[in-house]
Amino acid sequence: MNANKVVLIGAGMVGAATLNSILMLNLVSELVVIDQNVQRAQGEVMDASHTTAFAYSSGANIRVGTYADCKDARIIVMTAGPSIKPGEKMDRQILAQQNAGIMTQVMSEITKYTQDAIIITVTNPVDVVTYLAKTRANYPGNKIFGTGTLLDTARMRQIIAQQVGVDSKNVHGYVLGEHGNSAFIPWNLVDIAGVPVDQLDRAFHMKAPIDKEKVFEGTKSAGFDIIQLKGYTSSGIAMSVCRLIKAIILDERSILPISVVLDGHYDTKNVALSVPCVVGKNGAEHILEVPLTSEERRQFKQCAQNLTDILGKIS
Amino acid sequence: MNANKVVLIGAGMVGAATLNSILMLNLVSELVVIDQNVQRAQGEVMDASHTTAFAYSSGANIRVGTYADCKDARIIVMTAGPSIKPGEKMDRQILAQQNAGIMTQVMSEITKYTQDAIIITVTNPVDVVTYLAKTRANYPGNKIFGTGTLLDTARMRQIIAQQVGVDSKNVHGYVLGEHGNSAFIPWNLVDIAGVPVDQLDRAFHMKAPIDKEKVFEGTKSAGFDIIQLKGYTSSGIAMSVCRLIKAIILDERSILPISVVLDGHYDTKNVALSVPCVVGKNGAEHILEVPLTSEERRQFKQCAQNLTDILGKIS
Amino acid sequence: MNANKVVLIGAGMVGAATLNSILMLNLVSELVVIDQNVQRAQGEVMDASHTTAFAYSSGANIRVGTYADCKDARIIVMTAGPSIKPGEKMDRQILAQQNAGIMTQVMSEITKYTQDAIIITVTNPVDVVTYLAKTRANYPGNKIFGTGTLLDTARMRQIIAQQVGVDSKNVHGYVLGEHGNSAFIPWNLVDIAGVPVDQLDRAFHMKAPIDKEKVFEGTKSAGFDIIQLKGYTSSGIAMSVCRLIKAIILDERSILPISVVLDGHYDTKNVALSVPCVVGKNGAEHILEVPLTSEERRQFKQCAQNLTDILGKIS
Amino acid sequence: MNANKVVLIGAGMVGAATLNSILMLNLVSELVVIDQNVQRAQGEVMDASHTTAFAYSSGANIRVGTYADCKDARIIVMTAGPSIKPGEKMDRQILAQQNAGIMTQVMSEITKYTQDAIIITVTNPVDVVTYLAKTRANYPGNKIFGTGTLLDTARMRQIIAQQVGVDSKNVHGYVLGEHGNSAFIPWNLVDIAGVPVDQLDRAFHMKAPIDKEKVFEGTKSAGFDIIQLKGYTSSGIAMSVCRLIKAIILDERSILPISVVLDGHYDTKNVALSVPCVVGKNGAEHILEVPLTSEERRQFKQCAQNLTDILGKIS
Repeated sequence: MNANKVVLIGAGMVGAATLNSILMLNLVSELVVIDQNVQRAQGEVMDASHTTAFAYSSGANIRVGTYADCKDARIIVMTAGPSIKPGEKMDRQILAQQNAGIMTQVMSEITKYTQDAIIITVTNPVDVVTYLAKTRANYPGNKIFGTGTLLDTARMRQIIAQQVGVDSKNVHGYVLGEHGNSAFIPWNLVDIAGVPVDQLDRAFHMKAPIDKEKVFEGTKSAGFDIIQLKGYTSSGIAMSVCRLIKAIILDERSILPISVVLDGHYDTKNVALSVPCVVGKNGAEHILEVPLTSEERRQFKQCAQNLTDILGKIS
Repeated sequence: MNANKVVLIGAGMVGAATLNSILMLNLVSELVVIDQNVQRAQGEVMDASHTTAFAYSSGANIRVGTYADCKDARIIVMTAGPSIKPGEKMDRQILAQQNAGIMTQVMSEITKYTQDAIIITVTNPVDVVTYLAKTRANYPGNKIFGTGTLLDTARMRQIIAQQVGVDSKNVHGYVLGEHGNSAFIPWNLVDIAGVPVDQLDRAFHMKAPIDKEKVFEGTKSAGFDIIQLKGYTSSGIAMSVCRLIKAIILDERSILPISVVLDGHYDTKNVALSVPCVVGKNGAEHILEVPLTSEERRQFKQCAQNLTDILGKIS
Repeated sequence: MNANKVVLIGAGMVGAATLNSILMLNLVSELVVIDQNVQRAQGEVMDASHTTAFAYSSGANIRVGTYADCKDARIIVMTAGPSIKPGEKMDRQILAQQNAGIMTQVMSEITKYTQDAIIITVTNPVDVVTYLAKTRANYPGNKIFGTGTLLDTARMRQIIAQQVGVDSKNVHGYVLGEHGNSAFIPWNLVDIAGVPVDQLDRAFHMKAPIDKEKVFEGTKSAGFDIIQLKGYTSSGIAMSVCRLIKAIILDERSILPISVVLDGHYDTKNVALSVPCVVGKNGAEHILEVPLTSEERRQFKQCAQNLTDILGKIS
Repeated sequence: MNANKVVLIGAGMVGAATLNSILMLNLVSELVVIDQNVQRAQGEVMDASHTTAFAYSSGANIRVGTYADCKDARIIVMTAGPSIKPGEKMDRQILAQQNAGIMTQVMSEITKYTQDAIIITVTNPVDVVTYLAKTRANYPGNKIFGTGTLLDTARMRQIIAQQVGVDSKNVHGYVLGEHGNSAFIPWNLVDIAGVPVDQLDRAFHMKAPIDKEKVFEGTKSAGFDIIQLKGYTSSGIAMSVCRLIKAIILDERSILPISVVLDGHYDTKNVALSVPCVVGKNGAEHILEVPLTSEERRQFKQCAQNLTDILGKIS
């Protein structure tokens, strides 16, 4: 295995942003791009490869490849498949059906060459895609997971940070559950420097307390809003993937909320949902059970039910 | 002045890629985006701002702004204006006329607020735009320059490096002159580890010598090729801007080929063309005269003539 | 002001480690070293300056200077003064008396040239030194602070992280009060991913719960232990300074526990003690009052009393 | 093999500086320190490990280990053995004899566990140590090399850069031969932006031409001077090792002057000397023959003779 090799499937807006962000990690020696639209992949690879000549920029070997490149890859990032467009009314079931099919095909290609690479799924609906990819291909559970609510969590932290006027890295807490409509924020876990969310106004001399409902709405609509404003999302999701890649290659054992297939955790089975996991060289090394209120447990079960319903309708 | 503040004009594909690449420099505390299409700017800012919550990612203050933000900016990057589209037959004179107008307007806005910021022009044809911006606004010459052949140079180095099988950072030499059709490579300046280009095959056990004509063609057509393949160029030019920003903020006094208004250098006046310059905290601090053959001097004069012709036709 | 200029006072083991770590931040353009032992400063500067030639390494201007260099410095780091040696029985009062004198002299030099630079004090006992430097020189309170328990906090986090088997960046909580014998850990503020310290064993499948007393002892004795083992401390304190420099230059508004002169915060006045502060371009921009138990408040008052006693005995 | 694991032998001043610099590369997941003086190793490890808790700092697993750790190491760095002290009259033959013995022992330990790791030798006289380590242990030649004149080259570039007033990364050329008294500079290979060393004064408006003899003397005496000034050298050599580690882990195929066992290159055999090599994932992947004048070839042969003499006297 080439421990610093990443294969990137999909050279659309998300794939391209991910490609360029991965390069700037200065952590990868070989970066292979696969896309059905080979021209597009070539264009992105060519554009990115020129940056290797600049002082300080990564000198990675960037190239267009095939699934055979998965053979010695450390990490495979799956971004292929259609996504929601501005103004589109999103039928999640149709998107799920379509991308489940694409992911199944991709997995059958990948598994011809490897069961060792860690697969990061980005394609939406990410929880559905992750679950089907893992189970249909019988891939090791710790080695396949979705970006899930990692980005939603970053959004929530940034929104709160901006209101409080501090570094968003100081905001703790998670968005959990489904990457989508039924995600929720366990507010008991949210704090800044040990100050609970309801006391932030006093500690930071704010004019008013944090409006939790507004933070939640802002977090949930962020992706949709960005699509309306610029046509697609890319920067945030690209950096989510990078965060995971760094945690894996540098074996950080960092705790990050990602979509993993649950096996009794939070009394839930047979779906993939986002919960905080320890991410290291072996992928999702430990699924963490954080303290939830009974209402939050109910919300979690509701997420699971939503996913089960969607999965049940996929052929 | 806020020494770590950058104002970015234009949130198109180049502007957006530049925005995200600047963030990953971890060098800027405030990053302001201006675009006539405010929604697009808002979308890019929103998407990028979420990344600040990730460990290791820059925590910069990213926001949509106005020209008043130039007041205390250290660096202003100009990427606005239409660009060549795939399949388009490029009429450079028309593009020049149009973007000269846009740049003039932008300069009249900028100079209401500052004569101190360093302005990096990216908008094409960059040599025309840079010359008019500098002269019409009477802006200090060291403080305004175009990315010019910085990217062409990176492309040439990467193309040679790939053939030789070494790090592209080890390839020295420059593409000089016009960022466009009449650029040229002074081959005497090209070497790897002191080995001249014509001896590379022996030193590196290559099957054949470097085909200089092919390298030159590949370098010249790279931008056009990428546009055909992916629809636009972004990664390479974004990193060119980043290279300059780093050299300025960290006062590197690094030598980089950029488009500057010449004042007798290389026996040339009243145009902007790309030559190696020392780039530091004061911008283009020194214009370097590198040894050229008489044929190369002729090519340089030809570039100057081309530019003079275009400039003469602009109202 | 040169916004990326740092002046480093003291080229002993701490100063030298700080010099080299600052360079690797790739954030500083000018780095000036001052030491009474000019030869030592020259040696460190010479050694460090050679690294600027390596690809990827910072190209900063590193040199030996004088206090006149403080004039346009953004940040001044004070590491000068004797420190505890291995096997030495530490008489803190004597050390306090001696380093208070040195700091007073240094401040009288600095204030000849600037009241604008942010001064980071490292010299021990850091709370005493910080208080006297601020009050005797009437320096703006937000612009002078000590590294305080920033390093103790890192030690506590790393010790817990190692026991739990996760990234130490995921351990939250602080060591507060005095950088020294009377520091304390408010355990209510310590958690990993929202899991309180007493539930970590269950959540992370540990064999036994965290032994808080042992963590506290390990944290408190770490500095002493390192001095016994290698003769001095350097890496940890150097990176503490770097963390602050990055927060200031990039205006992160990050929350970090540092030693600041209190003015009624935590019902305490007329001493400097470590509490979480928002650190940004203006230095310690906000002193945060985190929720403490009554026992912890008592411990805090005890720290304040200790400091007052020491300060009272200094002439 | 753990592709991001480094084993560091020796925790003296060079080893300690190397440890801390490697960490700041953010490229290594596991860093193991071995020293006969276990306490010293523990002290350095403990001090360094606390830095992992700081935002942006590397979260590597740093620990004291044994030679068994070489089993899955990607890179082993050898810094152990006595070095020259300030004021000492250096008897190179005695030092060679002593450190050859230490290196032989170390190699016999390493080769119990691996023939796959890349070994970087730092211990002086590095050319002697490298040659004996390679030949006595019959270690693959591309996988063992010394830092050689990599640091001398950096020094030469920095000294010239400072005189010219440009970024030292823009100075090209090498110090070749022996890391020590008989090193030499092939001046034909030295240039800045294609401007030969004798024309630098004109191109950069300098008051006088570069004094090549002075540059050479400054380069040669730099190590000695630093030892006199601060007691030992550390920063520069630490970063030399880091440069190599980065080139290996990221498979850069970067050209760097290092000490390799020659096998007919430059008409030389049976010694290790520094020449430019392509460094990538397989170590020293290609030994480059750069164009030398006949006088320089004579100097090279003289270096080889010196080494042969020293080697002949070692039992």
